[in-house]
Amino acid sequence: MKAEIISIGDELLIGQTINTNAAWMGQELNKIGVHVYQIISISDTKDHIIKALDEAKCRTDLILLTGGLGPTRDDITKHTLAAYFSSKLIFNQEVFENIKSFLSGRSIPINEFNREQAEVPENAKIFQNKNGTAPGLWFETDGRIIVSMPGVPHEMKALMKEQILPAISAFFITPVILHKTILTFGTYEARLAEILTDFEQSLPEAFSLAYLPKDGVIKLRLTAKGTNKTALTKRMEHTISELYRIIPEYIFGTGEDTLEQIIGNLLKHQGSTLSTAESCTGGRIAHLITSLPGSSNYYIGSIIAYSNRIKEKILNVDPSLINNHGAVSREVVEAMAQGVRQYFNTDYAVATSGIAGPDGGTIEKPVGTTWIAATKHQKIISKKFLLGNNRNRNVRRASLTSLNMLRKLIQM
Amino acid sequence: MKAEIISIGDELLIGQTINTNAAWMGQELNKIGVHVYQIISISDTKDHIIKALDEAKCRTDLILLTGGLGPTRDDITKHTLAAYFSSKLIFNQEVFENIKSFLSGRSIPINEFNREQAEVPENAKIFQNKNGTAPGLWFETDGRIIVSMPGVPHEMKALMKEQILPAISAFFITPVILHKTILTFGTYEARLAEILTDFEQSLPEAFSLAYLPKDGVIKLRLTAKGTNKTALTKRMEHTISELYRIIPEYIFGTGEDTLEQIIGNLLKHQGSTLSTAESCTGGRIAHLITSLPGSSNYYIGSIIAYSNRIKEKILNVDPSLINNHGAVSREVVEAMAQGVRQYFNTDYAVATSGIAGPDGGTIEKPVGTTWIAATKHQKIISKKFLLGNNRNRNVRRASLTSLNMLRKLIQM
Repeated sequence: MKAEIISIGDELLIGQTINTNAAWMGQELNKIGVHVYQIISISDTKDHIIKALDEAKCRTDLILLTGGLGPTRDDITKHTLAAYFSSKLIFNQEVFENIKSFLSGRSIPINEFNREQAEVPENAKIFQNKNGTAPGLWFETDGRIIVSMPGVPHEMKALMKEQILPAISAFFITPVILHKTILTFGTYEARLAEILTDFEQSLPEAFSLAYLPKDGVIKLRLTAKGTNKTALTKRMEHTISELYRIIPEYIFGTGEDTLEQIIGNLLKHQGSTLSTAESCTGGRIAHLITSLPGSSNYYIGSIIAYSNRIKEKILNVDPSLINNHGAVSREVVEAMAQGVRQYFNTDYAVATSGIAGPDGGTIEKPVGTTWIAATKHQKIISKKFLLGNNRNRNVRRASLTSLNMLRKLIQM
Repeated sequence: MKAEIISIGDELLIGQTINTNAAWMGQELNKIGVHVYQIISISDTKDHIIKALDEAKCRTDLILLTGGLGPTRDDITKHTLAAYFSSKLIFNQEVFENIKSFLSGRSIPINEFNREQAEVPENAKIFQNKNGTAPGLWFETDGRIIVSMPGVPHEMKALMKEQILPAISAFFITPVILHKTILTFGTYEARLAEILTDFEQSLPEAFSLAYLPKDGVIKLRLTAKGTNKTALTKRMEHTISELYRIIPEYIFGTGEDTLEQIIGNLLKHQGSTLSTAESCTGGRIAHLITSLPGSSNYYIGSIIAYSNRIKEKILNVDPSLINNHGAVSREVVEAMAQGVRQYFNTDYAVATSGIAGPDGGTIEKPVGTTWIAATKHQKIISKKFLLGNNRNRNVRRASLTSLNMLRKLIQM
């Protein structure tokens, strides 16, 4: 059973909006055994929408559209679908009540644009949108399903999760597709490929392996297709245990795990606390850690010491260390880690000091030079990394490298 | 002149990777007057790549492929293109030298996988990749251009910027497309649409307006198409000045401006300094501010006070305020802002305290309740916001709302 995702909106084509919706939908469809054949982003025009629908109907059983359902004049999907099915728009009282209740909950007065959103194609099944004013629309035509959803990510996601995915599972019979992802950190793609040459060649026919590198993390994605779920699952488990045998030192997690999650779980388990002192990463590490619900149980806080004065004043870094070794040095980053750990009275601490760029590099310490320290009480580890010449990438990589160093320290 | 972007990789279809490449390419192509007709994400299979190429050739003059050029076995684009053009792969010494020099610069030993990357289709023009091992490939066929690039974002971007975009501009004659984006903050989409009803109806034929809401920012994108750049530009300027006349209180910038950039420029201009005290936003504001090169000139640092103890100890918040009003209150957030400003001795400070969720809400203070304060010396403004029930969205919205409040204070 194949599906196609059609994302509608000129903002996607001119790159003003990144198509995060399609990625999320691909993930969710995959989980229920729907094979996404392709994803296509098209313009906000009637002709393009109709052409895309016609083409998609020839190759797939399920077409999911997002976008163009808003209250403004550039939103034409609903009218186009009504025309496509030669259906007319009728006022739907239930949709109108939902719009009124949504808006009143946010103290927003209803207006004529919202009232028009209660008009829906006569042949559509309606999915009420609890998080916005445009309902989801479900059309059945020649055994195929066409679904239209708003493009606002959290509205689309709630509609999919709560109503549309269950409806798809009920309508179609789907095959078994298994994906397992093993997460690695600490080496580079070509080196991993070299180590895994024999492993890849001995993979069963139904299996495939992909390498997905990002900001230092390399995801290894194993895919298995078949009909016998039990046999496939068993084979997958065996394949994964092989990977753990071959590259144990690089694997830090699986699936959607993140370094911040793994650290959070370890700290919760130990009942330990953490603080951070960030210079070059400027709050990125704190942001990653606090993105998790419940992080206030182990994460006490952070000092973002962007100026040397703060490194000295709050983190108690001896000014002579900065004078003698520079702010980007083993001595200073270790002092920062110890300083913040003592200041916040935590079990663990991590500190960063580096030259994120684009300015500030020297021949001795080029842009990308980053010192990271992780400490647990009296124990401290620190290391220098040469990351690269792009500021934002350096910040991302330094943050993940810090978390990986902390993880290793916790697991020592 | 129309272009199509083909993004290759199963990771896009199963949603493991978000297609940021296509958005960036769309933006860059648009700037040089290339109209991106559609963006399509397809699987890592020979058949699908060939089908997509055949279809794209029927409707566009320029096809840009990314992905599938890596050193591993799942990378098949190069072989597929060679087969598509009935061309053979030949070893290219120049490419090999580039690979060797790239790897040696990172102290990575060359291996057989990398050596194979030096084999390129005989009919391709080569663009050397300074940031990786896979070169860009440029094919000319029946007056159409097909370009293949690696999928690693920073490799693709450097190749496009430095070599491929200039080559496209040299090869094609392109029409005039103007995009101008006006950035607003502080109201919601349907309300803006209502205010702008007459404005929209009086737009010239060649103009269109789109609303792009995200995390509280609503981007208004004006597009104009034509042949006479001077006339179009003049008309665009007039249209934009109309917008500034109608909604001055909501507009904070244009184009790719961000609140953190605007604040950075204002602070630099004034020679003022800034510090932050973040509770619910957990480092997100600091991360946004320090994402800009040169931010160390005005941004001194931050206290991320995730625990009440830190609010009292470092920020000097009177414990009785927390006891009497709760951590999420006007009294505490104002004390945090004043505390951090005095502690870091800065001109400005911003503080946040809120219930990001999913837990911690009460009937009186539901999840999403967020207090924000901005201060300049003795002057302080603060406000309560009811954001919503999604943790990460709350953090994003609270961060941008804080920056907008700070911007208004600076511009008062």
